[in-house]
Amino acid sequence: MRTEVRYYQQPELDKPVMVCGLPGIGSVAWLAVNHLQKELKAELFADVYSPTFSPKVWLSEEGVVKLMKGEFHFWKNNDGGADLLLFTANEQPYSPEGQYELAEVVLDLAQKFGTSRVITMGGMATDRFTEEPKVYGGGTSEDLVKELESFGAVKLAGGAITGTNGLIFGLAKPKKIPAICLLAETPGYLSLDANAAKAALQLSSKMLKMSIDLTALDKQAKENAEAVQKAKDLSRGSFVRESRKGGGGELPYVS
Amino acid sequence: MRTEVRYYQQPELDKPVMVCGLPGIGSVAWLAVNHLQKELKAELFADVYSPTFSPKVWLSEEGVVKLMKGEFHFWKNNDGGADLLLFTANEQPYSPEGQYELAEVVLDLAQKFGTSRVITMGGMATDRFTEEPKVYGGGTSEDLVKELESFGAVKLAGGAITGTNGLIFGLAKPKKIPAICLLAETPGYLSLDANAAKAALQLSSKMLKMSIDLTALDKQAKENAEAVQKAKDLSRGSFVRESRKGGGGELPYVS
Amino acid sequence: MRTEVRYYQQPELDKPVMVCGLPGIGSVAWLAVNHLQKELKAELFADVYSPTFSPKVWLSEEGVVKLMKGEFHFWKNNDGGADLLLFTANEQPYSPEGQYELAEVVLDLAQKFGTSRVITMGGMATDRFTEEPKVYGGGTSEDLVKELESFGAVKLAGGAITGTNGLIFGLAKPKKIPAICLLAETPGYLSLDANAAKAALQLSSKMLKMSIDLTALDKQAKENAEAVQKAKDLSRGSFVRESRKGGGGELPYVS
Amino acid sequence: MRTEVRYYQQPELDKPVMVCGLPGIGSVAWLAVNHLQKELKAELFADVYSPTFSPKVWLSEEGVVKLMKGEFHFWKNNDGGADLLLFTANEQPYSPEGQYELAEVVLDLAQKFGTSRVITMGGMATDRFTEEPKVYGGGTSEDLVKELESFGAVKLAGGAITGTNGLIFGLAKPKKIPAICLLAETPGYLSLDANAAKAALQLSSKMLKMSIDLTALDKQAKENAEAVQKAKDLSRGSFVRESRKGGGGELPYVS
Repeated sequence: MRTEVRYYQQPELDKPVMVCGLPGIGSVAWLAVNHLQKELKAELFADVYSPTFSPKVWLSEEGVVKLMKGEFHFWKNNDGGADLLLFTANEQPYSPEGQYELAEVVLDLAQKFGTSRVITMGGMATDRFTEEPKVYGGGTSEDLVKELESFGAVKLAGGAITGTNGLIFGLAKPKKIPAICLLAETPGYLSLDANAAKAALQLSSKMLKMSIDLTALDKQAKENAEAVQKAKDLSRGSFVRESRKGGGGELPYVS
Repeated sequence: MRTEVRYYQQPELDKPVMVCGLPGIGSVAWLAVNHLQKELKAELFADVYSPTFSPKVWLSEEGVVKLMKGEFHFWKNNDGGADLLLFTANEQPYSPEGQYELAEVVLDLAQKFGTSRVITMGGMATDRFTEEPKVYGGGTSEDLVKELESFGAVKLAGGAITGTNGLIFGLAKPKKIPAICLLAETPGYLSLDANAAKAALQLSSKMLKMSIDLTALDKQAKENAEAVQKAKDLSRGSFVRESRKGGGGELPYVS
Repeated sequence: MRTEVRYYQQPELDKPVMVCGLPGIGSVAWLAVNHLQKELKAELFADVYSPTFSPKVWLSEEGVVKLMKGEFHFWKNNDGGADLLLFTANEQPYSPEGQYELAEVVLDLAQKFGTSRVITMGGMATDRFTEEPKVYGGGTSEDLVKELESFGAVKLAGGAITGTNGLIFGLAKPKKIPAICLLAETPGYLSLDANAAKAALQLSSKMLKMSIDLTALDKQAKENAEAVQKAKDLSRGSFVRESRKGGGGELPYVS
Repeated sequence: MRTEVRYYQQPELDKPVMVCGLPGIGSVAWLAVNHLQKELKAELFADVYSPTFSPKVWLSEEGVVKLMKGEFHFWKNNDGGADLLLFTANEQPYSPEGQYELAEVVLDLAQKFGTSRVITMGGMATDRFTEEPKVYGGGTSEDLVKELESFGAVKLAGGAITGTNGLIFGLAKPKKIPAICLLAETPGYLSLDANAAKAALQLSSKMLKMSIDLTALDKQAKENAEAVQKAKDLSRGSFVRESRKGGGGELPYVS
């Protein structure tokens, strides 16, 4: 068994932008891409299964089995803007080699559909909560970084990005696909930081000249803010647990 | 060396049901499938060797070497019911990738023989001993789950199933083989829980409209119940060891 | 890079017996096969390199680099008895998959030369020193075990043999090459147990109807016995270090 | 994805000497090869990407993404001496198998360009600081070792060299490329030991009959010596941190 994409349909897309969000710190990227998918009613067109995911399956509330997998959705933009390809998965591959392999498979699909730009996202842990998280941005070229700065991003100068989100971003470069990575500030202790996801999406939508309704993320963001406030009131100890509970506990399956 | 199936014969089977049981918690699945194989005098027709099993060999009491391997048995049903394919192994693969690989190899064989349904089994650790263990059931579709409920299973709502038993169940879905997974309640501390295996087999046989003699499992089940009672009498400390001894110690080789 | 055999020559052999000895407990098998190779002036004809060995190289006393590798020697028997193939290596592969891979490569070579029997060796840790170590024997068939018993081996009933020595032994079975495994008693604390190697060779030579001069092993064996005696006199503490020193310290390179 | 070389150009070289320096103890080899590359204005002609590197990317100060990779530079010698091939990378592969794989890929490239000699370098930890570090040398033949001794190297007698620098050196032998390995003395606690790099380069340049300006390394070497002196003055505790700071902290990206 190899990491393999199975297609349900072959959408016709016009130089789409691919937005990638795998689980990671604060689930920022994962939340952002799932929000996009639901808000835009993007259509599932391919799955990716891999022996480099954890050797386990999930059961739905109805008792139906679900595999560890990645999913590709597409969205046709009828307003003249860019079509979208969305990629997410319910976890990152288990091994370093698996993370490289998945990144390659995702970028091969991006190339196949003539992707004009790849956007990956993530969280940047800051250890403090803010209602207005900054968004840091890096690119495969200085021009892209300047473009990001013009939309309000802070230049991501120096440092390393680990994991599959970073590899999809980086490996786009030798494949000559322009790519950017957006890291939204997130306190390390939130498991589902909707506020950070919102910040990353706001910047992305400006860049894509799209208007995306973000209200569905507000509910989660508000819960997080309340949990943090409550923790401050109570001060220490019970905080992390509260926050995790507020954040929704286990990362739900991609659906 | 790759995970590879070696055939001794090519049985002609009519839309068989495949029952899979690899070692796991309480050895529930392993006991159940071994019982089926002996009780039905199912015939060995293929082995599977894999470099993803532990790098070791076993010696029989006669000093004859035996490899880590999986075994496929078949049973022709002469009463008009479904033929059976049985799969078991003396351990689960060592690595996550190996677990995926073995699951694929097993399902490829299932497809080759036109398997109409896959049943995988396992134990669900509850930390308490019961003489009437419940059996939880999940499926690749809601219809299958409802069918299981009609035979007395409790819907397996939510949660994850780890290991090869879970992967065979889950990977059947993209291969379009209807599959179910039965998890029988087992206290975590029994190494060979014949009572749980019995419960899983009772439900399976109802579903398969087969009558299977389960008396051979009763002896082991009784030993377990006695060990548990003795432990309760003595209360703490020596319990686990007693129970393990009662349970047969080392997992014997598949034969 | 794959595990690969490089040939220096292609010897013509008549149904040779292959004797395998990789490093392991007490270096029993490794010592035995190296002794055979030197005593018989067996000729190097092939090397095996593998990325599954440790990622390192050795330097000789002359400053010349040597790779981790396995070596195949052959010996033509001019007395009418069986020709010999000798296999040894300076370590066992790093990973479980690597151990399976090397075992396969060795048995493929055995098949290529029409090997009539494979003998693997090892140590069986007993935690006590004896000048007359017993040799336990297992085989790929009951007949072979009985043959071994007739030469003085104790039947190896039950238990597991881990590592490449065990896998070469076990994987010979599906390849239909008759194979035996000899485990000589060794106290776990000797790094080079020449006494155990001698015992394994004495039994092998009886079986092969060869006479092998074992005096070169006696020196090392005597040193071990003296180190053990000294340790008994001094009693505890300094024992292991003495013995290790007596045993030669670092495992020397295969040459 | 496999370990793969991507060419920017195909230089015409006349029996070049390849100098390899991957990060390792004291970053000796890495510093030496980077110095050569900058001092000679060697030209980048190929990259090597590998899934066996860490799954991460780096950002430049301009926010531009850089992959983990190896780089090949070439330098045409217009003074009649040997052309040079330089290989370095920003880290060693993650896994043992990956280290073997990268070593093979590097040597395949060496063969493709008709490399007449491979020089690998490294540090030999001595736990003491010296302004005149000795350089130890090993080779793929005794003649090469003698040649090294004639240039002032100390024969590297016995011992093991771990990691990719050692494997490139060792695997050159079965590929019949003459190779040497130079290990310069380095106290284990310096992260960037320019003094040791200088010593290795001085010996190499004598052997290559090249004159290389080493003043750029002197600044770093002086900082190290001062940090060591300061530590001696202050005696214990704060030493390692001082030295590391002096040494430049994080290993910078290959550029």
